[in-house]
Amino acid sequence: MEAGPPGSARPAEPGPCLSGQRGADHTASASLQSVAGTEPGRHPQAVAAVLPAGGCGERMGVPTPKQFCPILERPLISYTLQALERVCWIKDIVVAVTGENMEVMKSIIQKYQHKRISLVEAGVTRHRSIFNGLKALAEDQINSKLSKPEVVIIHDAVRPFVEEGVLLKVVTAAKEHGAAGAIRPLVSTVVSPSADGCLDYSLERARHRASEMPQAFLFDVIYEAYQQCSDYDLEFGTECLQLALKYCCTKAKLVEGSPDLWKVTYKRDLYAAESIIKERISQEICVVMDTEEDNKHVGHLLEEVLKSELNHVKVTSEALGHAGRHLQQIILDQCYNFVCVNVTTSDFQETQKLLSMLEESSLCILYPVVVVSVHFLDFKLVPPSQKMENLMQIREFAKEVKERNILLYGLLISYPQDDQKLQESLRQGAIIIASLIKERNSGLIGQLLIA
Amino acid sequence: MEAGPPGSARPAEPGPCLSGQRGADHTASASLQSVAGTEPGRHPQAVAAVLPAGGCGERMGVPTPKQFCPILERPLISYTLQALERVCWIKDIVVAVTGENMEVMKSIIQKYQHKRISLVEAGVTRHRSIFNGLKALAEDQINSKLSKPEVVIIHDAVRPFVEEGVLLKVVTAAKEHGAAGAIRPLVSTVVSPSADGCLDYSLERARHRASEMPQAFLFDVIYEAYQQCSDYDLEFGTECLQLALKYCCTKAKLVEGSPDLWKVTYKRDLYAAESIIKERISQEICVVMDTEEDNKHVGHLLEEVLKSELNHVKVTSEALGHAGRHLQQIILDQCYNFVCVNVTTSDFQETQKLLSMLEESSLCILYPVVVVSVHFLDFKLVPPSQKMENLMQIREFAKEVKERNILLYGLLISYPQDDQKLQESLRQGAIIIASLIKERNSGLIGQLLIA
Repeated sequence: MEAGPPGSARPAEPGPCLSGQRGADHTASASLQSVAGTEPGRHPQAVAAVLPAGGCGERMGVPTPKQFCPILERPLISYTLQALERVCWIKDIVVAVTGENMEVMKSIIQKYQHKRISLVEAGVTRHRSIFNGLKALAEDQINSKLSKPEVVIIHDAVRPFVEEGVLLKVVTAAKEHGAAGAIRPLVSTVVSPSADGCLDYSLERARHRASEMPQAFLFDVIYEAYQQCSDYDLEFGTECLQLALKYCCTKAKLVEGSPDLWKVTYKRDLYAAESIIKERISQEICVVMDTEEDNKHVGHLLEEVLKSELNHVKVTSEALGHAGRHLQQIILDQCYNFVCVNVTTSDFQETQKLLSMLEESSLCILYPVVVVSVHFLDFKLVPPSQKMENLMQIREFAKEVKERNILLYGLLISYPQDDQKLQESLRQGAIIIASLIKERNSGLIGQLLIA
Repeated sequence: MEAGPPGSARPAEPGPCLSGQRGADHTASASLQSVAGTEPGRHPQAVAAVLPAGGCGERMGVPTPKQFCPILERPLISYTLQALERVCWIKDIVVAVTGENMEVMKSIIQKYQHKRISLVEAGVTRHRSIFNGLKALAEDQINSKLSKPEVVIIHDAVRPFVEEGVLLKVVTAAKEHGAAGAIRPLVSTVVSPSADGCLDYSLERARHRASEMPQAFLFDVIYEAYQQCSDYDLEFGTECLQLALKYCCTKAKLVEGSPDLWKVTYKRDLYAAESIIKERISQEICVVMDTEEDNKHVGHLLEEVLKSELNHVKVTSEALGHAGRHLQQIILDQCYNFVCVNVTTSDFQETQKLLSMLEESSLCILYPVVVVSVHFLDFKLVPPSQKMENLMQIREFAKEVKERNILLYGLLISYPQDDQKLQESLRQGAIIIASLIKERNSGLIGQLLIA
């Protein structure tokens, strides 16, 4: 068991109560008081979450249980923990893992600096794992930092994209109805086979829904249901909402969820999750240049071309000067992509300054950060061979910073006198930058690309 | 309406009756006779397929209907057509598209050389589109090349990974039972909401299945069902198996399908489909070298390193000599990845020979082909600047062959005297080659990478 100090903010997050995800539901924080029930002295930790993570992932067709499969080198469950812990009103997150994965899970918590996590041993079925999680919250053990919550969220370790908005909705509904769960429209029609393997009947699709996660319950309701329920339920049941209905006569409120709630089940879902994560961290590029304020500065020209070529991406620029204060803010705001323009010197001075700042920050803990070191060169004035030495240099830098989860690439942009030709090489440079950011290909780090 | 000459083989496919996909069900062809019912004079075209493709893809969240969304620049529906047309016993494929997409569809058929396709106008609902497809097969019009099949397959335009094995299973079952459809286990529990949005009941997951595609029917059964059914069925129904049950008392056989049958529904499914396709065409690499037979040839050394670094990939090698006869066979066998070793000359002579062969073949029609032009250089003996001229050259080649769907990259591998250092640079080269093949990144074509 371990739990971080209460209220400790994630270093890479903007603040303990903001989700840090673009498009997050900002009405969420406004209703927190009523949800979390934070009257002093009464239920100081009113909402907790239980995450069963004892599955073996047989449907994935890979030996690693799916919750531990890596996405951009980080295990899937860490993304789900990140999604829950950025919601500050969830006071405790209890994760149920099998004994054999206990050490793996501890090292994940340490490496990715997860907070407010407690570990319990998983049971042989999902229901038994959840029950173990609830027991840990129910028992006021002397050495436990956990206390009984008013409301408990139950979520899956393999649904990493859950948003604060839907968590708030199910918690609010659970306070009113005793139980609540997210649902989604059915993608396929559901049929029932008869004993001979033929169609017995098909369900009307519009009248049924897929039951997804998260779900939330008044703690006393779901804990009572688990204490009452039969071994058969614990072994073969799949639906917590059904237990609340059967043993506590609590009719769960069903809440429409977003498509993001889907469960990573098959190998194709891992591919999809990786692409979604890559897309999410590629929405902003910061062009870093020296203090030169001239609007005709080649860095500004590149910025303009990036803006027009990548119209779904936010492109900002920032100077390295002023002790880099603004740049610090951009790093805190979780921009994961930097284009560093080196003009005043022929070596990597600007890039090295940026790399030092990134290494000092905790930005790279959760996601690989892309840095493209851009160099301009008029091939007619400087022999390209001179640049080959730089090439060797960037390979060494790249190897070094890869250890810190920074993917460093070099980009040499031709700088002809002719304005039209310059525009063309800048455009070419923008395409290469976009490709590098989109793919985050660690096999190509340290390469010097030419535009 | 258009239909290719019967039995015409796809140029890029190994033969009209082989699936060309690794792991395809080779027992399939053995049972063809009995399935297709090819007794002379009786039902010469016994199995046809209808593909409703009139949907607007509102769930995808993109303006393009999902069946036309590009994957590796080719529309999704073309992959589904490819999956059906490689099954030689499917004689006709009728696609229902909306009037506004008719020209788009015709150009897709032409560009990707699809055969045995007929187009009909889609209806406003899926059922009406299928009905239109069936009508086209039922009516023996004077100018139509279509004739009534014994069995008709109904499939979705957005399920591109259907295998011959499952098609054969549903067709065989349909001949016996009158109707058959693929099913899959439910991923989520299915619930029914009451009028107030609360849980009414949840279904036992083990006793229900998701109804997927393909489905197959005796033509007379499903055509009769569509002729009998109500407007309400045509507007709001979702399940063809249900129509056969309701109007023809035909109880469909339910056949377990593979996870591959899933329907591309959301944007994440497009991501998943792209990754799966990339993975499938990255299973084989051919190392192409000159006629030098020496086993110590640096090409063979690279081949060995590729084999040990990429253990899930089949690595072969082939000489460009002998008028390239063996290489022709590898191209016919659909290898989509080539590493071309240039040693005897300092320019791109070998690579150019390979590119010419590829351009003459039809290999690149369906998938982008990766060619890595590899060059070796002892930096101590040759000044790197000399190689910069080559760099400029490969950019022009790359631009040119991109038009033919070939992604060309350069790779300069350091060739030191020291054996251990050579192994290290070959290993580095293998990592870069693996990255290029895995990503198929068109933004980086023409780059000269350094190992």
